[in-house]
Amino acid sequence: MQFASDNTSHAHPKIMEALVAANTGFAPAYGTDKWTAALEERLRDLFAAPEARVFPMTSGTATNAALLAAMSPPWGVIYCHETAHIEVDERGAATFYAGGAKLKPLAASDSRIDGAALKSAIAADAAGHGVHAMPPAAISVTNITEFGERYSIDHLAALRAVSDLPVHMDGARFANAVASGTDSPAQIVEGLGALSLGATKNGALTAEAAVLFDPELIERFDSHRMRGGQNLSKARFVSAQMLAWLEDDLWLDLASHSNAMAARLARGMQERGDASLAYSVDGNMVFATLPRAAHARAYAKGATYHLWGVDTALDGDPETPLLARFVASWSTSEADVDALLAAFDR
Amino acid sequence: MQFASDNTSHAHPKIMEALVAANTGFAPAYGTDKWTAALEERLRDLFAAPEARVFPMTSGTATNAALLAAMSPPWGVIYCHETAHIEVDERGAATFYAGGAKLKPLAASDSRIDGAALKSAIAADAAGHGVHAMPPAAISVTNITEFGERYSIDHLAALRAVSDLPVHMDGARFANAVASGTDSPAQIVEGLGALSLGATKNGALTAEAAVLFDPELIERFDSHRMRGGQNLSKARFVSAQMLAWLEDDLWLDLASHSNAMAARLARGMQERGDASLAYSVDGNMVFATLPRAAHARAYAKGATYHLWGVDTALDGDPETPLLARFVASWSTSEADVDALLAAFDR
Amino acid sequence: MQFASDNTSHAHPKIMEALVAANTGFAPAYGTDKWTAALEERLRDLFAAPEARVFPMTSGTATNAALLAAMSPPWGVIYCHETAHIEVDERGAATFYAGGAKLKPLAASDSRIDGAALKSAIAADAAGHGVHAMPPAAISVTNITEFGERYSIDHLAALRAVSDLPVHMDGARFANAVASGTDSPAQIVEGLGALSLGATKNGALTAEAAVLFDPELIERFDSHRMRGGQNLSKARFVSAQMLAWLEDDLWLDLASHSNAMAARLARGMQERGDASLAYSVDGNMVFATLPRAAHARAYAKGATYHLWGVDTALDGDPETPLLARFVASWSTSEADVDALLAAFDR
Amino acid sequence: MQFASDNTSHAHPKIMEALVAANTGFAPAYGTDKWTAALEERLRDLFAAPEARVFPMTSGTATNAALLAAMSPPWGVIYCHETAHIEVDERGAATFYAGGAKLKPLAASDSRIDGAALKSAIAADAAGHGVHAMPPAAISVTNITEFGERYSIDHLAALRAVSDLPVHMDGARFANAVASGTDSPAQIVEGLGALSLGATKNGALTAEAAVLFDPELIERFDSHRMRGGQNLSKARFVSAQMLAWLEDDLWLDLASHSNAMAARLARGMQERGDASLAYSVDGNMVFATLPRAAHARAYAKGATYHLWGVDTALDGDPETPLLARFVASWSTSEADVDALLAAFDR
Repeated sequence: MQFASDNTSHAHPKIMEALVAANTGFAPAYGTDKWTAALEERLRDLFAAPEARVFPMTSGTATNAALLAAMSPPWGVIYCHETAHIEVDERGAATFYAGGAKLKPLAASDSRIDGAALKSAIAADAAGHGVHAMPPAAISVTNITEFGERYSIDHLAALRAVSDLPVHMDGARFANAVASGTDSPAQIVEGLGALSLGATKNGALTAEAAVLFDPELIERFDSHRMRGGQNLSKARFVSAQMLAWLEDDLWLDLASHSNAMAARLARGMQERGDASLAYSVDGNMVFATLPRAAHARAYAKGATYHLWGVDTALDGDPETPLLARFVASWSTSEADVDALLAAFDR
Repeated sequence: MQFASDNTSHAHPKIMEALVAANTGFAPAYGTDKWTAALEERLRDLFAAPEARVFPMTSGTATNAALLAAMSPPWGVIYCHETAHIEVDERGAATFYAGGAKLKPLAASDSRIDGAALKSAIAADAAGHGVHAMPPAAISVTNITEFGERYSIDHLAALRAVSDLPVHMDGARFANAVASGTDSPAQIVEGLGALSLGATKNGALTAEAAVLFDPELIERFDSHRMRGGQNLSKARFVSAQMLAWLEDDLWLDLASHSNAMAARLARGMQERGDASLAYSVDGNMVFATLPRAAHARAYAKGATYHLWGVDTALDGDPETPLLARFVASWSTSEADVDALLAAFDR
Repeated sequence: MQFASDNTSHAHPKIMEALVAANTGFAPAYGTDKWTAALEERLRDLFAAPEARVFPMTSGTATNAALLAAMSPPWGVIYCHETAHIEVDERGAATFYAGGAKLKPLAASDSRIDGAALKSAIAADAAGHGVHAMPPAAISVTNITEFGERYSIDHLAALRAVSDLPVHMDGARFANAVASGTDSPAQIVEGLGALSLGATKNGALTAEAAVLFDPELIERFDSHRMRGGQNLSKARFVSAQMLAWLEDDLWLDLASHSNAMAARLARGMQERGDASLAYSVDGNMVFATLPRAAHARAYAKGATYHLWGVDTALDGDPETPLLARFVASWSTSEADVDALLAAFDR
Repeated sequence: MQFASDNTSHAHPKIMEALVAANTGFAPAYGTDKWTAALEERLRDLFAAPEARVFPMTSGTATNAALLAAMSPPWGVIYCHETAHIEVDERGAATFYAGGAKLKPLAASDSRIDGAALKSAIAADAAGHGVHAMPPAAISVTNITEFGERYSIDHLAALRAVSDLPVHMDGARFANAVASGTDSPAQIVEGLGALSLGATKNGALTAEAAVLFDPELIERFDSHRMRGGQNLSKARFVSAQMLAWLEDDLWLDLASHSNAMAARLARGMQERGDASLAYSVDGNMVFATLPRAAHARAYAKGATYHLWGVDTALDGDPETPLLARFVASWSTSEADVDALLAAFDR
């Protein structure tokens, strides 16, 4: 009953096999190896972006931060949802890399950026007092979001249409977004300046890729990445993971599975009388409220997941509904889901 | 009819006289002169803070930034009102000096920080994911606010009671706050970690003071100030201005006058059928909406002030109410106010 | 006997008069006033640079830092002499503003940058390991230097010829450089990207100007300046000082006088048996070694100046030669110089 | 004939086996797993430092940078050798993380920091002009150095004795230092504040560890690490590598082997008439000059290594001696060395 995060899972055997296979002989360092070259080709094809540049990374936080620092001057405003990982869970990495830029968190009725709110925020900043104000610089969207919701391509197009600002996508769970809908990867990234593509949460050991669609970002990104200590010498071991992850659509199979496990859990929740889903379940995450007592029972039986809010005490009024996050991974089984659902019961 | 800002006024003659008087012979540099020593003594008395340290400054922005950088680590959260000067009008100076700290702007029903909103924001950040989150670090209040409202000492006490975080006060218009109420300066600064005390907007040429009540801030403040290029060699010329400003309560006389001019303007507005005050008028600023046509007429007659919003066009529907800011200074006369009021008329 | 620094002097009466004269009525803020416009025109003429942009400043440190941050990316190398003010006396302001750029201090046989050493350093950095290294970004020369030596225009041309890097001049004592030679201001600044022009050390209260010859630097400079808290609201009070300073060549008269006082002091030193000049005396500063006992006598008689080295103890072997810096200002008199020379004697 | 770097080698099979073995089931994220706990215990034993804290990392650059940023304020001076990786090859990562601190590179007769030069540099900075100067903050030594030389423990003790400053060791090739001498790991790290311990260059895929001996550094280090994007979710995959690397002294066996290969190469060089060693060969690196023609022949035969200097052209005067770096790895064979030596010949 491990639902704490998709990053607690081990790696898929095929990815480990690829790692073992790549572990032979000498290879040039710092991404000049053949695996990295192949990965770039593969992702150019996938995204129908023949000019895109690809950099293997080991950290989603650093990928986000170095890309956003390439997109914004130190005095720029970067718009994101108020629940974005860059805003909430990266201890200010983006503003650190960007030299003091501002993240402007936007509220919305769900976990996706609202186009009208974005437009209004950009207009307000653009109307600021010249050099006294921080000018609009970039937009960052998370897909699927931190609360498991997917952006439609119409929604993304609408956000792009709001302004001429470059758009970054935090794709820590990009695979789950692709697997949950019918849009192609190329459709989803259309018009983006850059993508943080994550495999770590979806079957890899430690593998991310920075995908730069806008070639003007490269020099600045590369500099920020280097200064962040993210230019790995043995890059082949990251690229080999991602190649195996992409091969024969393994990444989509794994994401489809974790999505299905979350859907199964969500259905189980809905069938209960005491649970309530807080967000739509498009990907591999379920956010739901259950009575405190149900959480206490599940915890007592060894279930692992995070209560998600200011009140996370297991002792207290047993009826109070507490929000929790449940994350399914590629290695979550139907039995795991069913055991969790049963664990809430008396 | 100059109501663009209190920083467009010239300096009061007594302050200029003091500057001339200080311009004699040699004096040690970098704040080791006798004027600066006397200023420190004077402000210690004023604030009943015998341990306070005082640093002469020429920039309110830099004073705010260096003080906040002394109060927050690079990964800390600094809470302020969403209209605070540090958030809106300093191009990110505070986060620049602080190495990437986050300003968290708080919404409220008026231009003062709401205690409940502050409490909630701090609690949410304190409940963040350990090292992944940015921890609460400091609070900055502006008194009088950017929209001309004064904090009561009860309100300030309530904000301090929310947490143990150090509190900074942006006192660019501190004199207007003192002059508009009955609380003593010492009462207003009670419990503060530091104060940015501004004289430039109230009769000086270019004079601010950083007042540090918490001695632990000194080394970091002094370092940030130096690196910001704010350690003036000929500091006597700033300190002499402030001494004259404080002498015989000139500062309060000037602030009382500018407050009175704003009050006169506010009364005139209220007597009109077409104007509406947007904020309470505690100090020297009036925010009011008037029909676009009234603004157009005043502008045509040479009135100078800022329309305050996204829509600042003088041509368009003549009836649309547009918000504007009117700032009175120590040198604004009753005739100026009356002329402005008349200028709105057909 | 005040020779501690030229920044301990008061301001010249004509500059104070101009300040008083500027103190009338309202003026637009943040450098949009008529004094600042006139200053820009005046400096464009002086430097034969019709496109130059001029920004009034109150701090030489901040002027240097914001200009260099406009010239170098956060990962660039800025070359300077190992005794440069930016390297030694600004607590890292330039690297702070520039987001972590590197100052590379160059050794030389005197206090001026050696062309061969500069060429070699740039070549070494340019040969660095691609993105792993910090690339050459800019050059900063100080004229006159921190040790009172002037660059010839041939020397400056030779430094420019070393590379295509933009060149910044720290002109905290630019007037002394002009006054000590026959080159015109326009000849001295030929080919520069930007100049920090200082008046504070030469008769003003607090007045510097950032002069940008390269228009591409403006947006970045203006942003860095604003974030540094250096965009003064009442800029007229700086610009008015500089206008008076420039009028009728007052600036050169003052610099010629302080240069002459330094020359008189240097001659006096040379006539002594116990003193030795450490640098050529082109401007208003004398660096000389005298026996410890001579220093002790002068200090005992109230002379004020700085011993310049690690050993600054007045008690110890009386014969040990100790280096000291003596700075003459516009207000230093011949009698002051003669009194100092006499004070060294038994 | 792969001598470009030890980071071009693949990983040792035992380390890969350990990685495969760790790839089972769920594990808590962000270093709270059992492998990381075991690694901390193992390194505490190794270094006889029962209070030490250990953080798994994937980047030596980031490890260095986050540790040094924990040791120095943004305005501090960090002393290192002029050839240190942090100075030459990390694009300013340390100053970036530290918010603008200064690296002060020290020259020496070899690649190790000279105690007298260090003492002199610290004294000069400590004698700086108070808040105008950057104060001494920390010392970083690289062991073995970037040029393959080992510090004796007496040398290290002498450097520590120079001041009270905290000392950091860049141990990217720490194993080579241990393997080349008779001092224990605990002796080598005695008195250090922190160690960057590298396994990547010595048999791992991607594995470093930050070892903090001074517990006061932890909060700041952890914050800088997080903001740098170096807090890996699946940390077990790093810790498992390092555990296997340490087990049964594999790390020392691998380092002893690569050291032996370098020694073999050095002997071969010495037996030639045309080669000259530039540094003592204590570890796995050989720096030697050979005639340009010898290099051209070796390159033509497929040898891979780096020419190390400004002149790296293979065409030109065939007799000119050119410096080159040759790095042996754990997977370098005697045959490789002999082939390289032969490749220089006609």
